[in-house]
Order: sequence, then C-alpha cells, then structure tokens
Amino acid sequence: MRKKLGIAALLAATAALVAPGVASAAELDEVAGSLAERTSELNMVWVGVACVLVFLMQCGFMFLEIGFSRQKNVGTGVAKILINFAIATIAWWAVGYGIAEGGGNDFFGDSGFFFHFDQVVAGEAVTGESAMLMLYGMAFCAVSLAIVWGTTLERIKFGAYVIYAAVFGAIIYPLVAHAVWGGGLLGDIGGKPVMDFAGSSVVHLTGAVGALAALLLLGPRIGKYDASGKPRAIPGHSMPLVGLGVIILWVGWFGFNGGSTFEATGNFFGEVMLNTQLAAAAGVIGASIAIYLKSQTLDVGMAGNGAIAGLVGITAPSGFVEYWAAPIIGIIAGFLVVFAVLAIDKLVDDPVGALSAHGLAGIWGTLAVGIFASPRLIAEGAAPGIWYGIFDGNVTFGGTLGQLGVQGLAVAFTFVVVFAISIVTFAIIKGTIGLRVPPEEEDAGLDISSHGMYGYPEVFIPQPEYSTGLPSTMVGGVAPAASPSQMTATETE
Amino acid sequence: MRKKLGIAALLAATAALVAPGVASAAELDEVAGSLAERTSELNMVWVGVACVLVFLMQCGFMFLEIGFSRQKNVGTGVAKILINFAIATIAWWAVGYGIAEGGGNDFFGDSGFFFHFDQVVAGEAVTGESAMLMLYGMAFCAVSLAIVWGTTLERIKFGAYVIYAAVFGAIIYPLVAHAVWGGGLLGDIGGKPVMDFAGSSVVHLTGAVGALAALLLLGPRIGKYDASGKPRAIPGHSMPLVGLGVIILWVGWFGFNGGSTFEATGNFFGEVMLNTQLAAAAGVIGASIAIYLKSQTLDVGMAGNGAIAGLVGITAPSGFVEYWAAPIIGIIAGFLVVFAVLAIDKLVDDPVGALSAHGLAGIWGTLAVGIFASPRLIAEGAAPGIWYGIFDGNVTFGGTLGQLGVQGLAVAFTFVVVFAISIVTFAIIKGTIGLRVPPEEEDAGLDISSHGMYGYPEVFIPQPEYSTGLPSTMVGGVAPAASPSQMTATETE
Amino acid sequence: MRKKLGIAALLAATAALVAPGVASAAELDEVAGSLAERTSELNMVWVGVACVLVFLMQCGFMFLEIGFSRQKNVGTGVAKILINFAIATIAWWAVGYGIAEGGGNDFFGDSGFFFHFDQVVAGEAVTGESAMLMLYGMAFCAVSLAIVWGTTLERIKFGAYVIYAAVFGAIIYPLVAHAVWGGGLLGDIGGKPVMDFAGSSVVHLTGAVGALAALLLLGPRIGKYDASGKPRAIPGHSMPLVGLGVIILWVGWFGFNGGSTFEATGNFFGEVMLNTQLAAAAGVIGASIAIYLKSQTLDVGMAGNGAIAGLVGITAPSGFVEYWAAPIIGIIAGFLVVFAVLAIDKLVDDPVGALSAHGLAGIWGTLAVGIFASPRLIAEGAAPGIWYGIFDGNVTFGGTLGQLGVQGLAVAFTFVVVFAISIVTFAIIKGTIGLRVPPEEEDAGLDISSHGMYGYPEVFIPQPEYSTGLPSTMVGGVAPAASPSQMTATETE
Repeated sequence: MRKKLGIAALLAATAALVAPGVASAAELDEVAGSLAERTSELNMVWVGVACVLVFLMQCGFMFLEIGFSRQKNVGTGVAKILINFAIATIAWWAVGYGIAEGGGNDFFGDSGFFFHFDQVVAGEAVTGESAMLMLYGMAFCAVSLAIVWGTTLERIKFGAYVIYAAVFGAIIYPLVAHAVWGGGLLGDIGGKPVMDFAGSSVVHLTGAVGALAALLLLGPRIGKYDASGKPRAIPGHSMPLVGLGVIILWVGWFGFNGGSTFEATGNFFGEVMLNTQLAAAAGVIGASIAIYLKSQTLDVGMAGNGAIAGLVGITAPSGFVEYWAAPIIGIIAGFLVVFAVLAIDKLVDDPVGALSAHGLAGIWGTLAVGIFASPRLIAEGAAPGIWYGIFDGNVTFGGTLGQLGVQGLAVAFTFVVVFAISIVTFAIIKGTIGLRVPPEEEDAGLDISSHGMYGYPEVFIPQPEYSTGLPSTMVGGVAPAASPSQMTATETE
Repeated sequence: MRKKLGIAALLAATAALVAPGVASAAELDEVAGSLAERTSELNMVWVGVACVLVFLMQCGFMFLEIGFSRQKNVGTGVAKILINFAIATIAWWAVGYGIAEGGGNDFFGDSGFFFHFDQVVAGEAVTGESAMLMLYGMAFCAVSLAIVWGTTLERIKFGAYVIYAAVFGAIIYPLVAHAVWGGGLLGDIGGKPVMDFAGSSVVHLTGAVGALAALLLLGPRIGKYDASGKPRAIPGHSMPLVGLGVIILWVGWFGFNGGSTFEATGNFFGEVMLNTQLAAAAGVIGASIAIYLKSQTLDVGMAGNGAIAGLVGITAPSGFVEYWAAPIIGIIAGFLVVFAVLAIDKLVDDPVGALSAHGLAGIWGTLAVGIFASPRLIAEGAAPGIWYGIFDGNVTFGGTLGQLGVQGLAVAFTFVVVFAISIVTFAIIKGTIGLRVPPEEEDAGLDISSHGMYGYPEVFIPQPEYSTGLPSTMVGGVAPAASPSQMTATETE
Repeated sequence: MRKKLGIAALLAATAALVAPGVASAAELDEVAGSLAERTSELNMVWVGVACVLVFLMQCGFMFLEIGFSRQKNVGTGVAKILINFAIATIAWWAVGYGIAEGGGNDFFGDSGFFFHFDQVVAGEAVTGESAMLMLYGMAFCAVSLAIVWGTTLERIKFGAYVIYAAVFGAIIYPLVAHAVWGGGLLGDIGGKPVMDFAGSSVVHLTGAVGALAALLLLGPRIGKYDASGKPRAIPGHSMPLVGLGVIILWVGWFGFNGGSTFEATGNFFGEVMLNTQLAAAAGVIGASIAIYLKSQTLDVGMAGNGAIAGLVGITAPSGFVEYWAAPIIGIIAGFLVVFAVLAIDKLVDDPVGALSAHGLAGIWGTLAVGIFASPRLIAEGAAPGIWYGIFDGNVTFGGTLGQLGVQGLAVAFTFVVVFAISIVTFAIIKGTIGLRVPPEEEDAGLDISSHGMYGYPEVFIPQPEYSTGLPSTMVGGVAPAASPSQMTATETE
C-alpha cells in the first residue's frame, strides 16, 4: 500500500524529466494501468460481498427446512446442510467448476479441474479474480443443491445425500450452468442466447427438478395422506424458524441477483437490487391476497413462500426488465405459488413447497424475460441484438415470441437434463443403500435414529429435576413475578 | 470489462499520435472520466453493502418482537414483518420516495413517483446510482415502520397493519424525511440545518411516536395490569430469540450509520462505524449497571435494550462527534432506557420498550448533536458554518444553544407531524375494521386465531405418538445415554 | 461528490492553459492523487465489510453456547455475549489497541490509548482508515474473548466475566497481537517472522488457552462425571441453534480471513476466501467420517465442530498456501477435533469443544504454515525471504524446519503468556468474588438465579390457561386440521 500511496509523488518526479509542466505518456500509462487494476478489484469486492450473502443463504435453507419439520426432525436439518455444503464445495472444486466454466464444447467444459491444479503445479498463479468468481459459482451450486434437499425432510436416509450431492455438484448443476452461462448449447440459439440473469432456471428450476425426482421415488411421509388419499396438514414445528429462513434468503438474494452483474460498472447492480426488492415485496402481497381469498386467514408459511416465489421469479429478469415490470412479475409469482402449493399437495408430499416456489416460479421467471425484457437493458446489457420482450413496440410479434421460445427451450433443456440424471441417480441409490429410513425410524424421528440424539433432547427425554415448575430453591427467593425481567416495574422500586 | 482492462494499451497508442513521450490531454480526460465513474461505483458499492445490512434489520425486529411474545403469538410476528416490509416497499416505490426526495417545496416533494415512471416510459434510463440510493431510503422507511409495530404485539388485529403501513410508507415517514433530509423545512432554519446524521429523529423517533399513537388507542394486553392498576410481568417466551434480534440489529446498524455517509470518501464511514460501536457498547454497560443497581440482578432484556438505546442515541451524532463523546452518549442512553422502561411500564403496555429505546433515546441522540458536535466534523462534514456543540470553546454560549434549539425543533416537528397523522389514521382504523382482536382471540393467541395455526403447533396440540418420552423402538437401540452426541466419550471407544 | 464528478471537466479546462492537446503534469498529479485516495477507500470498504462479518461472529458464538446449554441456561448466553462484547470494546478502545498497535517495544505498544485521545484534544484528526483498522482489530479481540467464555457455560458466576473480560481486552489479547502483528517479539526471529495470517494462534489459540485456565479452576458441571469419573452426556438443548451458530461463524470467517489482507490489492482476498471455504468443507467431511467410524452415527454437533476446526486450521495458512493444501489442512483438522473432543471429555468438562476446535486446531493451523507455505505466496506476500514450507523443493530440509520451528515458537509463546496471566486472573477472581455459582443455583439454572427470569419462561412456569391442548374457543372454529397452514389443501377449496 505504501507503494500506491506514493504514486503521485513518484509520477510528479518523473514528469519533470520529460518537459516542465507537461505530463509524460509513461506516467499516464502507469496511472491508467493502476486504474484498471483498481477497477478489477472494485468489481471483485462487490462479487466478494455478494458471494458471502449467497453463502449465507445456506442458513436460510437450513431454517426453512427445520421450521417446516416436526420437533423430532430438527437436528438432521443442520447436519444435512453442513454435509451438503461441504460436498458441493469439494465436488465443485474438483470437477464441477471445470465442467461448467472450463471452455470445452457445447455440452461440457474440460479444463480447470481441482481449480487449475495443472497451473498450480507448474508454478503459475491463478488470479485472485478467478478465485473469487469460482467461489461465487460454488455458492450458486450449493444453493441449487439445498433446494433439492429441503423438501425431502422427515423421511430420507442420511447416506443418500452424500452420493447425490457429489453427483449434483460435480455433474448435474455444472452441465446446466455450462449450457447457459459457460459458452454451451443455450448461449447461442440461432444468434439468440437464453437470458437467465441470475438463474431462475439454471439454479432454481434445476434444484426443483432434482427435488421432484427425489420426491417421486421417496413417497410421502407416513400420515400425510388419509385412507382416501386426501392430504392432511403436518404443520411445521416453528414458524419463527421459518421466518428466520425466509428473511435470510431474502437478504441473501441481493447477493444472488446483485452480484450476477460480476462488476460494479455503471452501478447497474443498484438497478438489479431494486428490481429484486420490488418483486419480493409483490410476491408477499400476491401470496397473502391469494391465500386470504382462498381460506379467509393469512397463513404464515404462505406469506413466506410468496417472498421466495417473488425472488425466484425476478432472478432471471432482474437485469433485463424495467422497474415497473418487477412488481408485476412478483405478484404473479406470489399468486402462482399459493395455487401451486395447494394443487401439488394433493399429489406429492412437498413440505417446503420447493416444486412451487422454486420450480414453477423459476419457469415463470425464465419466461417473464421473454415477455418483459426492455430494449434499453438488452442494448446496454449482456445480450445486444436479440429479440425483445413482447411489450416493446419496435419489434414484430413474431420476433418477440422468438425470445419467449428461446426461454422456453431453456426450461425444457433444464428439465430434461436434470430430471434424467437425477432419477437415474436416485434409482441407483434406492436400489442399493435405499432412499428412505424404515417406518419405525421415521416414527421415532431422524434425529434420534440417524444422529444418535434428539435435536431438542429436553422435549423428549423426561427431565424430572427442574422441568416441573419453579425450582423450590427459587420460589421463596427471586420468584419470577417479582423479577424486573421483560420490563415490569412492580417490585423494582 | 474487457474495454476497461484495455484502457492502458489504447491510451498508450493514442498518446503516440500527439507527441512522442508526452501524454495527450484527451487521454488524460478519459482516465479522469473513468476515475470519476469508478468513484461513483465505489461509493455505491459501499451504500449497497449498507443497504443489505439495513434490510437485515427487519430480521432483528422480527426476533425482538417474537422473543418478547408468548408462545401463542410467535407466528404472527413473522407474518407481520413480511407484510410490513412488503407494503413499505411498494408504498415507498409508488409514493413515498417522491414525497421524500422529489424536490418540491418545504413540505413535500412532487416528482419521482413509481420511481420515475415518467422517465422510464419516455425511454430514459434512471441511473443505477439513483436506484441504489432509493433502495437505501426504502430500507430506512421499513426500519421506521418496524419500530411502530413491534410493541403492539399479542393483541393487534392483523388487518390494521396493512392500512397504517401503507399510510406510513407513503406519507408519514416521507414527510419527516423530506423535512430534514430532502430539502424541506428543517434543512435551513435561519441558516442552520437540523443535523440528524442517520436518523435518531427521522427514523427512530418517528417509529416510536407511531408506536405511541397505536398503544394509546390499543390499550394493554389482558392481564398486564392488576385490579389496582399495577403492572405485572408478562415475560417474553425466548431470550435467545431476543438476543438474536439484538445482535442482528447491532450488526445492521453499521450499515444504518456507516452507509449514511453515502460515499466512501476519506474513509469517513470508518469514523462513523467506530462511534457506533463505542456507543452501543457503552449502552449495554449503562443499562446493565442501572438495572443491577435497581434490582440486584442482570435482566437479559434490559441489557439488550441498552445496546439498542446506545445505537439509537448515536444515530444522529455518529457523523458529528469525536470518539470520546460516543461512549458518553451511549452510557447515558443506556441509563435512560432502564429508568424509562420501568416508568413507562406503569402507564402504557410497551412490551419491547420501543417508546424508551427508540423514542427517548432518539430524542437524546438528536439533542446530543447540539451538545457534542465537533467543529472539525462540522467544518469537514455536511454542515459547514453552523453553530457548534456546547463543548467547543470557540463559540459563544448563545451560539451553541442555537444548534441545541434547532435540534429540539426537529424533535418537536417529528413528534407533532407523526403523532397527528398516526392518531387520526389509527382512530379511523379503530372506528371501522377495529384495532384489536376480541378477548377470546387474544386469549387463544393470534397465531391460531389470525393465521389458522399455532406458530409452535407441537406445544399446543397433543402429540401422543412420540412426545411422551423415549420412543419404545429406540430405548433398546440407540439410547441417548449411549450416544456420542454433544461430545461424550462414555460408550464410544 | 459533485466535486469529484466534475474532475474531468475541470482538468480539461486546465490542460488548455499548458499546451493545446497536451496533458499538464499538475493535472496528472491530481488524477494520480485522487486515484491513491480511491485506492485507500476501496481497501477500507473491503475491511469495513469484513469487520461487519467478524462482528456478526458474536452472534455465532452466542448460539453455539446457547444451543449446547440446557433450557434452564439459555438467557445467560445472551447476556454474556452482550456484556463481553461491550467490555471488550471499551477495553480495546481505552487500552488494548494502544498495547497491540501503538509501536513501543518488543513487548507492548505505548501510544494510541483511548484511540489517540491526545491527538483528538490537540484538534488533530485521526484518519478514517485508522478508525476502520482499529475497529477491525477490536472485532478480532472480541472473537478471541468469546472463545474463552462459551465453554464455561451452565456454572460460571456472571460477575466473573466482567473482570476477566476487561483484563483480556486490555492486556492479554493485545500482548499476543503485539508480539505477532504489532511489531513485537515474534515479528522477527533471526530474520524470520511468525506467519499467522488471520490468527490461528493470535486469536483462536489465545481464546482456547484462556478457556483452559477457566475450566481448570472452574471444574465440571454437576453430574458431568459419574462416581467412577466416567463422563456422561449432557446434550445441548437445541441443535438448530447450534447449527445457526456454526453457519454464522462460517460466513463470518470470510471477513475474518478475507479481510486480513487489509486491502483489495490484486484481488488476493479471493484466494484467501477460496482457501477458507475449501478447508471448512473438508473439516466437515473429516469430522463426519471420524465420528461415523467411531460411533456408526453422524453426530450433529461433531459435524459442526468439524466446520469450525477446518476454519480455525486454515486461519493462519489461508494467505500462504496453494489451493490444493487447503482441503488437506481442513480434513486433518476435522479428524483431529473429533478425537480431541472425545479424549478431552474424559478429563475436562468442555461442552462446546473449545479446547479442541479452537485450541488444537489453532496449533495445527499455525504449524501447517510451516509445512505447506508456498514460495509464490511468500515471495508475493507479507513475508519475503523467509524459509518455506517443507513441500517446497527449492529449500533445504533444515531451512524448512526453521519456519516450522518459528511457528512452534508462536504456539509456545501464546500458550505461556495467555495461560500465565489468565490463571492468575481467574485465581484472584476465585479467591475474591468466586468463579462458580452455588450448587443450588446451578441446579435451578443460571437464567432464574443470575438474571431473575427463565430464558424460556413458559417451559418452566405452569401456563394453565392455554398450554393444555387446543383452546376451547377455537376447537369448534378454526380447528388446526381445517387450516391451510403449511400447505395442505384438504379444506381450502
């Protein structure tokens, strides 16, 4: 830093050698070079911040799953996220990054494995910028994986995670990411790229399709459907923990969408973040209205799902649409998620609503780009020269549908690739070590059966010494009613 | 980015055309222009980070409210924050931002509605910098609204939120923000502006006054006061969740105060953040000493309120006072909040202590600027040439009091405007849909009565299958005592 | 900001005065000077972000402690972190920063007390950069202190915290920080500095040694060991809260390690963050394999400890090793922590595993630098010209061991200094006000005995009105089975 701070003095001295009062070209080059370095660093500081926010989303998924579980299945949610985060990290580092980002052909990349291990052993440095962008990609992969798992709660066998997580982090997610973002098949469809700004399809639909494959082979929880096949409510044990999960995801999404600019240039991330917030808010409102109309009460989980659906919906369009479009996209996503959750609940046991909030909202978001994309943002943005959303008067109706068609292709591609590999992987797991715990373990809960101890031991193990009311030693002393706790003034003056 | 990285090469080539070895003015202009762009981006990266931190504060308010509620009223806290965050967002986007920041007259702004919808339809871009600053303002509005609601816990009717939230986000908060920060009435009082760096008055006092209006019309919870009118303790159900709320708010405050520089220039945000931390710490210490002296025990909620009071107290002065003043401001706020909570508890049922921690501490913070403002920071800062704090020897006593008077005016203005509109709004709500749930719903809890399900269902709904001790299938198998869980070695070797 | 944005125009005008088309040296100087300022600001924005993340780690420690406590001791964990954070802040501001960073001699610094109070009263400004770096140092001190306290849960006397926290923040941590990072004894050992990038020794081992001193004088919780001295499991009450703590710590660590670059230069923080993530992931995997092999079940707490051990292990090497080394360091730390926790549990009651996860993993991380340090990173990094890790072929075996020896010296120094002062401090506390609460208070729990109210009041205080199943007013109304909550469709259409 000493060097940089002295740059002005150094340059002033050099300038005098050229001509008094005149700046030398060499000096100017040096300043321009420094500025280019600072620009890269500024961009990576922004991506670094965004990356941390996306990592924080693991905490959001953890608590969404735990909150929607019963008390006997809360510790397993912690173990699941820790293990999956770990496996996704190592799989992405070793293989996935190379497949997603390592050049190659239309289908997969073929370099950069173990994060450019070949370069490292050759004594060449890999730039800090590469490392930062690779880590950011890893965070996205881990989000996509977390979506798969949440909804398998309360009955999946723990060991099944490890295998699928490795396949997902090394192959499934990277194939989709390569196709759309890594120079693969969907980057150029007759001159038109798929436009998925931060991954409504690449990340969210991918996760939801993995979840669908898992749920189909896994089946519902015991007691979810009655004898006639009608679904029954199995309420999650803690709405506060669901709320914690939702808000952390919401906040993390500013890194998810905002960081997908990969740079600070033109403060474009500000526009993306504002779109994100408007759609999330509209998603809450849409879902709240929908559930209230349907049931005359405001379901807490549905309000949360509305936020997530709004966020998933705006993920693809956040960098391509004007501000007025964002709340429209969000409110539609919010409506959609309520009706989808209620409809899907009759068919599949999806306790966190992943198929709806990440799957259908992901499809909606991907298609919404084809409807609302703004010429201004396309001209300035990542995809000049392509067809525009149907609300732009300057292009023909046929031309417009073209981009919508391209977006539809991305949905179809994502669905087919992810579903095919996932269903095969899960089928192999099911046929070997098994996907589901035995009924008596499901009944006892995964905490005690898979992890050796309840997540809330004092709820399940009798605690005779102190759980039967006030401790006798205290009753005559600092009795609660006489305490100043939580702001009472009765006895404290 | 490619363009920028090649700037040095490009410029070097151009330079040769002017004179060998001499830098061309055009090139230098280009470098200077790029630097100006990078400067704006650096500033907005900082504001973007700060904005995310302020959004995270919604999570803090959610858990402060939930932690101080009883188990039957925990889900409603989640729904409340989600809905309020959503409504504040849409209201600020549509109307509030225009009133607060849209130029206009002394009383309200008159442009920028629906975030410059007029410009957007005219095909003009709104800059990313504007979007970022608008989002940051929205985050502040949402904080102020969250303060209003927290303390109405356990008895307010859910529908009442929606209406007041819309009025608050569209009108109430924007009027105050316009008066102080948006070029309105309090920006120039005989040449002296009100100095409220990050909003002790604009945000915190505004929220607390809204809360006061609500509480006066709402009345206390059933059982809060005994027959003789003496307050009784209704302890919050979870101090860990209160602690989560407090720490998240504390951390978020670095974005709240630190980001209110709106730029990174001169690393001034570092000074602001240090002041913030010193005051928060002193607030904890002040409140802990006060409650210990009063009751010979260290109340957990009071320690948390001390932190918040210290933070609210330093919010206005954080950019105007020297480091030595910050802990003094904080410790006084900490003392203040304890005695205020105890005193107010006899009159009004304010379970989270909002009137004290945000109201009185907000007033204290606003006035503290008039006492401690440093000439150095005023000369360098946003308000050159105004009168200084009374500890500056260079100005006359009369001059000094002048700024204190101006600060007092801000308090009075905020109180009158917010209270008048709020009490009318709440009175209309009370007279139409009603402010308060019926007693039997309050008794049953808002979760089941307003949201259709308990927030903690297993606490209230009998769970015969597995909550009666160890599951029989497990007792002979992986009995807890034989588990390695939580680090015991008994049976594991 | 207006000033900066107009810089290009201003310079263009000035240039015309020198020679048409030629850039003036004065202008170039001004641009270069501005760039130097922006560079400092960019660096401090990064450190500011990192600082907030490290502050957030207080929340992680809070929940690690609370989650591993029983329900009767949960509020005290909140109070403890708030008070300790506050005391560490004030102690560091008043004294600790001066000792750590205030120049001076080999043993302690001697200036900068009360954050350069002497300068402030002389009317001199302290730069924002200094303030930011001082705050960042404070965050590290608070982390180290939090490590000491967590593991004393469920039996320590609250008042004992305050005294030790003040000594620790003012003297103990600053002495170690000065020795390694502040120009003290370990900065130059025969030309070789100790290399502890972000504090495996300085922060984590220091905290763990303080914890060891406390535990030795404090003794185990009642019931931890049976009559024959065999340890018994006392499971923590909430694995979800443990999980919350672990993930927050994990995320915060990106600020802890990533910010220890103190600058954005060359995007080096990206490399550090990637190393951090790889080691954390490998730590989870290592610990999970180890505990599974040992007990055929996947303990949730152990998976979490694996993450923390991986993070502590990579803390010292994160800026000195290549990517391939990070997962190796992490997986070894993960294995280590499991066996250490099981072994230590027989001797000392360390409920959160601090001695293992922060102590042994801290030693391992410090030594790992001596094994894996890369010539590339040493040449480019903070420590040119020193001996390298043993895997570098260019240096002799003897030379290599030299750095390992230097690292060992840091471990020994940290252990001796921290243990000596801590054991004396605790002995004095024990001999005066006492270290431990009386058995009847331990039995009743610290919440009710030290803080006047349970942290979970409704668990302990009978709640006849509404905790005995469904409220009768509701059974005929919005019965839970008929609710749409948590996504059921039964009755909602």
